[in-house]
Amino acid sequence: MPVGLEHPKELVKISGIRLSASSAKIYSKKRNDIALIEISPGSVTSAAFTKNYFCAAPVKISKNNLKKSEPYFCLINAGNANAGTGQCGMENAKATCKALAKITNCEEHEILPFSTGVIGEDLPVKKINNTLPDLVKNLSDNCWLDVAKSIMTTDTIPKAVSKQIKIKNSVISITAVAKGSGMIKPDMATMLSFIATDANVTKDCLEKIKDNALKKSFNRIIVDGDTSTNDSFLLIATCKAENSEIKEQSTKEFEILENEIIKVCNELAQAIVRDGEGATKFIRIQVCDGQNSSECLSVAYKIAESPLVKTAFTASDPNWGRIVAAIGNSKINNLDISKVNIYFGEICVVENGERSKMYTEENGKTAMEQDEITLRIDLNRGSYNEEIWTTDLSYEYIKINAEYRS
Amino acid sequence: MPVGLEHPKELVKISGIRLSASSAKIYSKKRNDIALIEISPGSVTSAAFTKNYFCAAPVKISKNNLKKSEPYFCLINAGNANAGTGQCGMENAKATCKALAKITNCEEHEILPFSTGVIGEDLPVKKINNTLPDLVKNLSDNCWLDVAKSIMTTDTIPKAVSKQIKIKNSVISITAVAKGSGMIKPDMATMLSFIATDANVTKDCLEKIKDNALKKSFNRIIVDGDTSTNDSFLLIATCKAENSEIKEQSTKEFEILENEIIKVCNELAQAIVRDGEGATKFIRIQVCDGQNSSECLSVAYKIAESPLVKTAFTASDPNWGRIVAAIGNSKINNLDISKVNIYFGEICVVENGERSKMYTEENGKTAMEQDEITLRIDLNRGSYNEEIWTTDLSYEYIKINAEYRS
Repeated sequence: MPVGLEHPKELVKISGIRLSASSAKIYSKKRNDIALIEISPGSVTSAAFTKNYFCAAPVKISKNNLKKSEPYFCLINAGNANAGTGQCGMENAKATCKALAKITNCEEHEILPFSTGVIGEDLPVKKINNTLPDLVKNLSDNCWLDVAKSIMTTDTIPKAVSKQIKIKNSVISITAVAKGSGMIKPDMATMLSFIATDANVTKDCLEKIKDNALKKSFNRIIVDGDTSTNDSFLLIATCKAENSEIKEQSTKEFEILENEIIKVCNELAQAIVRDGEGATKFIRIQVCDGQNSSECLSVAYKIAESPLVKTAFTASDPNWGRIVAAIGNSKINNLDISKVNIYFGEICVVENGERSKMYTEENGKTAMEQDEITLRIDLNRGSYNEEIWTTDLSYEYIKINAEYRS
Repeated sequence: MPVGLEHPKELVKISGIRLSASSAKIYSKKRNDIALIEISPGSVTSAAFTKNYFCAAPVKISKNNLKKSEPYFCLINAGNANAGTGQCGMENAKATCKALAKITNCEEHEILPFSTGVIGEDLPVKKINNTLPDLVKNLSDNCWLDVAKSIMTTDTIPKAVSKQIKIKNSVISITAVAKGSGMIKPDMATMLSFIATDANVTKDCLEKIKDNALKKSFNRIIVDGDTSTNDSFLLIATCKAENSEIKEQSTKEFEILENEIIKVCNELAQAIVRDGEGATKFIRIQVCDGQNSSECLSVAYKIAESPLVKTAFTASDPNWGRIVAAIGNSKINNLDISKVNIYFGEICVVENGERSKMYTEENGKTAMEQDEITLRIDLNRGSYNEEIWTTDLSYEYIKINAEYRS
């Protein structure tokens, strides 16, 4: 059961984007598992991909195609990652692009393929190509939710969000979908995510927004510390809105658009954690007053990656000793533990490196029993703060991953 | 159930070492939880401790005392780690040393305290001190197994081993005990371990042997990636054997002694993994033909720490895609994945970065169903090899750690 996560609310159409979803029967059970996104000419696109050396064939192809031109189509399948498939995997992905290019009368390099699912199995090219005519025929501007559903793997709930803002009297819309549940670890958004806005903005500005948004959202989440072979993040601006073109980072308009896109990314990134495999808790880890961002993140990730801390959260056990041990193991120079404070929500658990005089086990237990918990570490040695989001480690995680072939 | 691990066989007395164990009632259930080791004058000792910033009070005191003199006694308790206990923890540990010094008429700094168990609770000084007269009275040279049992926490089986070798017609004995089961991660042996030999050897040589032995044994194991606050490793030579003193590293005698101590450490380190919390498999990860040790270890640990790989082992699922993803995430420069081969035992699974033409799922399954599995990764880019030992991640691990307060 996802933690505090609802089914997506109404999704706003984005002028210049049409979508469709279908079933290529990649999964044995009946479900949609393939999606197409059409991007109108005049749009600008910014992307980021997994840094895994064993990145999937579609990742290599998409990266390469983006160097040649703005994309016209995104072709996305679930159920098969087309990773660890070598040269044959490259040829298979290209074969689907070629077939789509033929139907739509575009260049092959205008198509970006994306895959997610089982690693090491051959992409069922024929099944995929068979769905292409219907996918093209059914393109529509109100299929965002269908796309969100069709790209799910171990996700239990589709992930999509829309927002609207005004920039100097022009209404700007943003709609986005994402998938991700396991293999969630930062250093590139670990998932698939497609975000579109009708804002009129230059490619340079869009690139900057992408970098900042990733840094503050998808690169601040962790479920299990594994980074997938297929992570891809696409930010598209169709430039159809009536705002005058956003060209400079220093402008108010840039700031408004960036903030809203960050909010969208935040919601999706949190949704991925809330729907993390076997998650029973949503945990914010705040590390405050460090000497730099990097040491704050090191402490935060060491806590978030500790199986002992994660199982304590599952049991609602205020076992702060495990948190202390994780902090002590993080990559940080000359930590003075006698300055470290730890809080569960508002409750001070550790003060100056030892159990707080005010702390009672009962208070700790009450704080740990919540579905959403904020764990704050004060290092008291600088002025940098960082926050990441994670989940606990439950029986259900083991069940999902000992049974699901991903 | 530990994997392929038997109850310790007969343990050899070490001339110059006497031991005893008793119950200080730190645990609510009836069991021994305190031990004393007496080291005769003329012995030399070498030690290593956790690098965790939040190291326990006894670790700080033992480190400090070792600077002042060779130790006369080791006082070890299970059930309470005396970590995260601040100044009060220091005073408590010192109070037990002081009481023992008084009874035995030695200096306080000749006593090394060791603790393992729950973090953040005050050491029950009175309970411990009450047992001291009996511990001293009962010192005997044949209590090694009692000591091994008394220092267990989540261990399901006591860990102890003896070996004898000949150095130029002199019989040299080595006997050792260890405890450890969770919070097992290298970068210092994550456990308590006490190793004694009667060999006649200089302190300098003993230090060198300790460094090499740790590097090849306790620093090559991982259960869950957590490093504890209390790890301590003590290597004692009583110098009572009749061999002429080993003074130089370049001698045959040094090599024989070092090899045998490494074997003892290997057995204990493996025993800790085999009895790892919830372990159902014992897994050797060999990374071959890397450009240096560090990249081989990075690949090995990335695999060993991946919850997705570990759960696949639990399910005996030959899910090599997860291994490929873990390798791709390791800290290694410019990895050419088309040179990477992966083997489950003798079975080639991945060849040149993609599924081997010879590989069948059935063969993979058969290999993965074994209790002991060797996973070999050939990087084919250099001449360095490394091997580490790890376990799977089972429901039982979650059960133990969601229920046990450690």
